Amino acid sequence: MRGVLDIPEDLIELQGRIADSLVEVERVFGEQLASDLLPVDAMCAHVERYRGKMLRPTLVMLCGAVADPDGEFGSRAHVIAGAVCEMVHMATLVHDDVLDEAEIRRRGKTLNELRGNEAAVILGDYLIASAYALCSSLESPVPSRIVGNASAVMCTGELLQLHNRENLSLDEGTYFEILERKTAALIGASCELGALCSLGFGRGDDPVVGALRAYGRSMGVAFQIQDDVLDLTGTEEVVGKSVGKDLEKGKLTYPVIHHLGALGGERRGQSLGWIRSIAGGDASATGRLLEAIRSTGSIEAARVRAGSLVDEAKRSLDMVGENAGSSMLRVLADAVVRRDH
Amino acid sequence: MRGVLDIPEDLIELQGRIADSLVEVERVFGEQLASDLLPVDAMCAHVERYRGKMLRPTLVMLCGAVADPDGEFGSRAHVIAGAVCEMVHMATLVHDDVLDEAEIRRRGKTLNELRGNEAAVILGDYLIASAYALCSSLESPVPSRIVGNASAVMCTGELLQLHNRENLSLDEGTYFEILERKTAALIGASCELGALCSLGFGRGDDPVVGALRAYGRSMGVAFQIQDDVLDLTGTEEVVGKSVGKDLEKGKLTYPVIHHLGALGGERRGQSLGWIRSIAGGDASATGRLLEAIRSTGSIEAARVRAGSLVDEAKRSLDMVGENAGSSMLRVLADAVVRRDH
Repeated sequence: MRGVLDIPEDLIELQGRIADSLVEVERVFGEQLASDLLPVDAMCAHVERYRGKMLRPTLVMLCGAVADPDGEFGSRAHVIAGAVCEMVHMATLVHDDVLDEAEIRRRGKTLNELRGNEAAVILGDYLIASAYALCSSLESPVPSRIVGNASAVMCTGELLQLHNRENLSLDEGTYFEILERKTAALIGASCELGALCSLGFGRGDDPVVGALRAYGRSMGVAFQIQDDVLDLTGTEEVVGKSVGKDLEKGKLTYPVIHHLGALGGERRGQSLGWIRSIAGGDASATGRLLEAIRSTGSIEAARVRAGSLVDEAKRSLDMVGENAGSSMLRVLADAVVRRDH
Repeated sequence: MRGVLDIPEDLIELQGRIADSLVEVERVFGEQLASDLLPVDAMCAHVERYRGKMLRPTLVMLCGAVADPDGEFGSRAHVIAGAVCEMVHMATLVHDDVLDEAEIRRRGKTLNELRGNEAAVILGDYLIASAYALCSSLESPVPSRIVGNASAVMCTGELLQLHNRENLSLDEGTYFEILERKTAALIGASCELGALCSLGFGRGDDPVVGALRAYGRSMGVAFQIQDDVLDLTGTEEVVGKSVGKDLEKGKLTYPVIHHLGALGGERRGQSLGWIRSIAGGDASATGRLLEAIRSTGSIEAARVRAGSLVDEAKRSLDMVGENAGSSMLRVLADAVVRRDH
């Protein structure tokens, strides 16, 4: 992950090779979306600016490196798989912004804000169709299977989340079900694809593939919990930044679920009242609610939970052997819960 | 096409076999969308009611029958390809309804009307992801390539159409470019897939495959012109039906483009004024505009154009040989421009 990692000396060479292959991913990404129609091109150029950490292509490359430590992870298949995962991810960002009526992403205006919801819905569709078209240019249907299934699971996670909006009795089990579908499935698929690009697409049963997929899934859930924590804690750290978005949208996240679970009687009723009013559009209670959430140690509990998922992710790597790739995956997993943006 | 065709005696046996295979398509369609999550299942059940003519799966079967007249066109591959094409089509219906803020489809409420735009956007995404997942269950990546590419082209057609909303100088060339992308690409792909399911996925270069794809594309453009004509002529024939939707949305269609092209000076200015006011939300000029459109013979010109595309579609079949399948494709092509709904 570009720039956000404190990389140990002995992994710098690997980091450089990954950076090189990410340049290739960006090239293939741009080529696939290129259109002879000017308005399509203009919109794609705008959306390409959303590209941030390139987590998914990075995982494709790293898992490729782990699965075949002596081989090349920057093959055409790895590059295509990396671009496909990033494109699917970007399609979900574009549609999420429509659903959330978001105006800003990565310091720029969102496409829905700039061109309207209609263009954003269709462009998201174009991104996803292009991702599948690119994926099916590989010689095996296996990557298309993995990406198609992961995307369908992602959508069910989004639908489950939507169904539970304003459900103030959302339980921990359903919360994790949403995370596993919405976020972890594609991250796990990125890891799986990276390994298969190195080993061959017929090697789906190889335990290394399963271990890397498990790493990705645990890490993906941890990643999303950290996102949820940042949505709450950003207020204090970054002055003027609009946070608490999840609460405004009526989405209960881990810290809030933990908080409500830790309380009984009157205080619980008070917190529920605040949550209702924030979801109803009145943000004035946000400060008091945050204080209450802190008082039950719920932010800390979320961090502990994310930390234990990171440990689980790292334990999945025990069987894949020690090499630069697996060391980097450990560094990456730690970084996921340390990041502040 | 169920019930809408006047089938010659000698094609009734074929029609029965197609009806049987469409039952299989519906089964696979439902199985693929089945989810362990109740809210997902409920939405899919609603959307399944949108299923209408099943044109695309019918074309998969018929083109399968043409490509291999002595073989079976209802194989697992044909059924999967048929379900995939129908699912992609249905995903576009669901998203189109969001874009058009449509409230009614096939005499039932649209999903956006019933569950909100958010659910409709995500459910469309779920349908498209499920289509790809299903398509990649075939043993070759070729069908995924065809479907992925056709879907991406469809999206560029939608974007081009959106870009030209309220463009009152839209020319015929761009109008046909939109139709070829938005409608004809997937219908052509359905024909291509049907043929390949019979011949084998490595037979993409076979001239029969190309001929059937060409048939589908010409027929697809004719189909859309007829849709555009029905959007204008429905007013007079079906009392109380809300038509002229394209004009309300600022979409110029063939009859309107022909009409404007046939006029000069003052009368052209008058028609442009009516079109502008209709697109601006005032439908009071619809009657006068329709009369003006008829006065330049533009409805008839659209019918003639659709008819010549149907002839072109039928000529594409000249090289595939005479058999029940190709006879039925001819009947189907004629029905496309004769239909009134």
